[in-house]
Amino acid sequence: MRHLLAIEGMPRAEIEAILSRAEAFRDGRASERRLSGKVVGNLFFEPSTRTRSSFEIAAAALGAHVLNWTVAGSSASKGESLLDTVRNLAAMGPAVLVVRHPSSGAAELVARAVKCAVINAGDGQHEHPSQGLLDAFTLRRRWGGSLSGKKVAIVGDVLHSRVARSNLYCLRTLGAQVVLCGPATLLPAEVGRLGAKVTTSLDEAIDGCDAVMMLRVQRERQTEALFPSEREYHRRWGLTSERAAGLKAGALVLHPGPVNRGLELAPEVADGLQSVILEQVENGVAVRKAILETVS
Amino acid sequence: MRHLLAIEGMPRAEIEAILSRAEAFRDGRASERRLSGKVVGNLFFEPSTRTRSSFEIAAAALGAHVLNWTVAGSSASKGESLLDTVRNLAAMGPAVLVVRHPSSGAAELVARAVKCAVINAGDGQHEHPSQGLLDAFTLRRRWGGSLSGKKVAIVGDVLHSRVARSNLYCLRTLGAQVVLCGPATLLPAEVGRLGAKVTTSLDEAIDGCDAVMMLRVQRERQTEALFPSEREYHRRWGLTSERAAGLKAGALVLHPGPVNRGLELAPEVADGLQSVILEQVENGVAVRKAILETVS
Amino acid sequence: MRHLLAIEGMPRAEIEAILSRAEAFRDGRASERRLSGKVVGNLFFEPSTRTRSSFEIAAAALGAHVLNWTVAGSSASKGESLLDTVRNLAAMGPAVLVVRHPSSGAAELVARAVKCAVINAGDGQHEHPSQGLLDAFTLRRRWGGSLSGKKVAIVGDVLHSRVARSNLYCLRTLGAQVVLCGPATLLPAEVGRLGAKVTTSLDEAIDGCDAVMMLRVQRERQTEALFPSEREYHRRWGLTSERAAGLKAGALVLHPGPVNRGLELAPEVADGLQSVILEQVENGVAVRKAILETVS
Repeated sequence: MRHLLAIEGMPRAEIEAILSRAEAFRDGRASERRLSGKVVGNLFFEPSTRTRSSFEIAAAALGAHVLNWTVAGSSASKGESLLDTVRNLAAMGPAVLVVRHPSSGAAELVARAVKCAVINAGDGQHEHPSQGLLDAFTLRRRWGGSLSGKKVAIVGDVLHSRVARSNLYCLRTLGAQVVLCGPATLLPAEVGRLGAKVTTSLDEAIDGCDAVMMLRVQRERQTEALFPSEREYHRRWGLTSERAAGLKAGALVLHPGPVNRGLELAPEVADGLQSVILEQVENGVAVRKAILETVS
Repeated sequence: MRHLLAIEGMPRAEIEAILSRAEAFRDGRASERRLSGKVVGNLFFEPSTRTRSSFEIAAAALGAHVLNWTVAGSSASKGESLLDTVRNLAAMGPAVLVVRHPSSGAAELVARAVKCAVINAGDGQHEHPSQGLLDAFTLRRRWGGSLSGKKVAIVGDVLHSRVARSNLYCLRTLGAQVVLCGPATLLPAEVGRLGAKVTTSLDEAIDGCDAVMMLRVQRERQTEALFPSEREYHRRWGLTSERAAGLKAGALVLHPGPVNRGLELAPEVADGLQSVILEQVENGVAVRKAILETVS
Repeated sequence: MRHLLAIEGMPRAEIEAILSRAEAFRDGRASERRLSGKVVGNLFFEPSTRTRSSFEIAAAALGAHVLNWTVAGSSASKGESLLDTVRNLAAMGPAVLVVRHPSSGAAELVARAVKCAVINAGDGQHEHPSQGLLDAFTLRRRWGGSLSGKKVAIVGDVLHSRVARSNLYCLRTLGAQVVLCGPATLLPAEVGRLGAKVTTSLDEAIDGCDAVMMLRVQRERQTEALFPSEREYHRRWGLTSERAAGLKAGALVLHPGPVNRGLELAPEVADGLQSVILEQVENGVAVRKAILETVS
């Protein structure tokens, strides 16, 4: 595996190899500094504290020197200047580039332009593969090693969510059933093809689920008339205390963060016993160590 | 000592242990890399070059990987989002969080929310304990090891100054006498309780002093009608060349930086022989090494 | 050599020593971590991704901890506050300060104010010596070790370009002939004194050249009425495909980056076989390792 650009199309064995290696890091059984003396470049064309920091901590633990490049402004979003920027940074000899960009397909474009390994840390509305892997890792660890036969609901703005897309592919490849749920305007048209059940009813979606993944509402999109009011959204697609109380015993609640408390998730659910949100963050570092090691 | 949140209430023995350990670092007698392989997070909700850099250099010298998180904007100042941010970063496993925040009490709030050690790098108008320790260190080193019986004036906007507060507690605990001086509107109401002499007359305050700590004027507060004009401020509470010339022989001039030259301090005094401003900065790194080692 | 402030006046032997040492780094024959346990401060008063990153990678490879200080805003440009900032940072004990500043002479001012080594990473319209050295390195490496008797054209806004100035001195000291070319308004008045041929005709300038260095057009200056329109600039002083095709066989095209494609350089020339633009970037890291080692 030279790059990590998407979960779609990744063979199950590759996914499982990364998750197993991540277990070793998580349990302190692995401590190889595979990136010692090497440079990892965090190239972020969108702001991010959490994902960038998680990759930085993982890379530093493997011995790398981490360079942070945060590129703001619109000129950098243009294809040509993206490639110019990337080729120049790549010429300085990093072993790995971790790239986040507002355009779908940007990470693949970068991977074609450079010789080093590229990790997609989120490209537009396409994929966020490390998030998909760390979510699967979190579930697998909680469930004793397997996702087979488990039922997972992904709830919210599925249409625009790279997190939803990576999770859908990852969960299905690992043998879980997936239900997608959200307002009709925010569900992908090609849902049939995705091999998931689809519903606009949250109560139907979470009925019998082993885990519920709540997506973050991108507030800036609500002006687009695709969203109902925040109040209406919370009522129909928010995981309220009442709904959380009705979940199957032992069911888990996930969220990629940062949470809009009171919108997609009631505060007491975010902090409740069913929530594994902070475990996702903690596991993220181990999973990213495994990813960095795998591509380098 | 699990955290460093405030000087108020710190036992004298704890303060002296840190100062002694700092001496070892300052003289090159200590070189343990106690934080090797660990992460120190600099979490700054207010801009800072000097304090952040000082902690970064100290942490790196102890072997840590340093992560800088600078959080701008008002949403992050709200209590809830502060804790959400902090819990997420803490989940990534740092050994120490160094926190600066515009709200008094923020560092303690953070310390209650996370499992790792927390160092207060300045919280609102409450305390800035590492500054208090490094100022005491600078004086102690200059005075052959003891502050007993020395007289120190703290001059300026004492009311709003976290530097003044930490220094007051630190100096008094170490046996020095403290005189607080500034415009009547900028002296704390509860001065009696603080165990310090108080005066609005700078000439009275510095008479017989062994050291004068000049506070930085926060220019943005001058619109609040608490301040006289800059010219009037300088005339009445500025350390001019004439006043500096009248100081006791060997008296020292301190300032936490950055200096407003010509406002609280005349340029030639800031750069003069009595000034130990750059020594404060230099000593700051050693003191912060000792602090980081102590809490980790 | 205590500092690297300018190429003007540098003895040929010093330049060649740096270039030879850079060869050892470039070929992987040198790996000493001369800056192990030391701090290198990147102090940038102007934005820069590429130069800052290149120094950061070089310093980290030598074992240093790298501190990035990016100072925006105009107050910091004033002489006094520059020195205050620098003296404070220097008091924290860095081994080397790498300084970029919009005022000509700023690096020398800094060097006089501090005890550590100072590297000029670009000061106003004065010099950018590490760029001059890495350009010379790139040519020397391509040409089998010597620049003697080679002819190099420097094209564009020579008047305001620190890159042009450093390259002119470096190339001439190493025995090359230099031709300066650009609009009459953008050529230095004292050209005679600089020991270079001067012309406003690009076709004349590049005739028989072994290398052409295209300068970046600073678009913000075009409002100053010194520049013709972009279209006219490209037609008269841009390296078009037609002109590039007319270059001597084996002639090289350089650019300090980032390229304004279609303005000073046609896109297909920037990416063409004659272009060594990415080699310049790659070599930059090796040359900066040699510079850092030399001054520390």
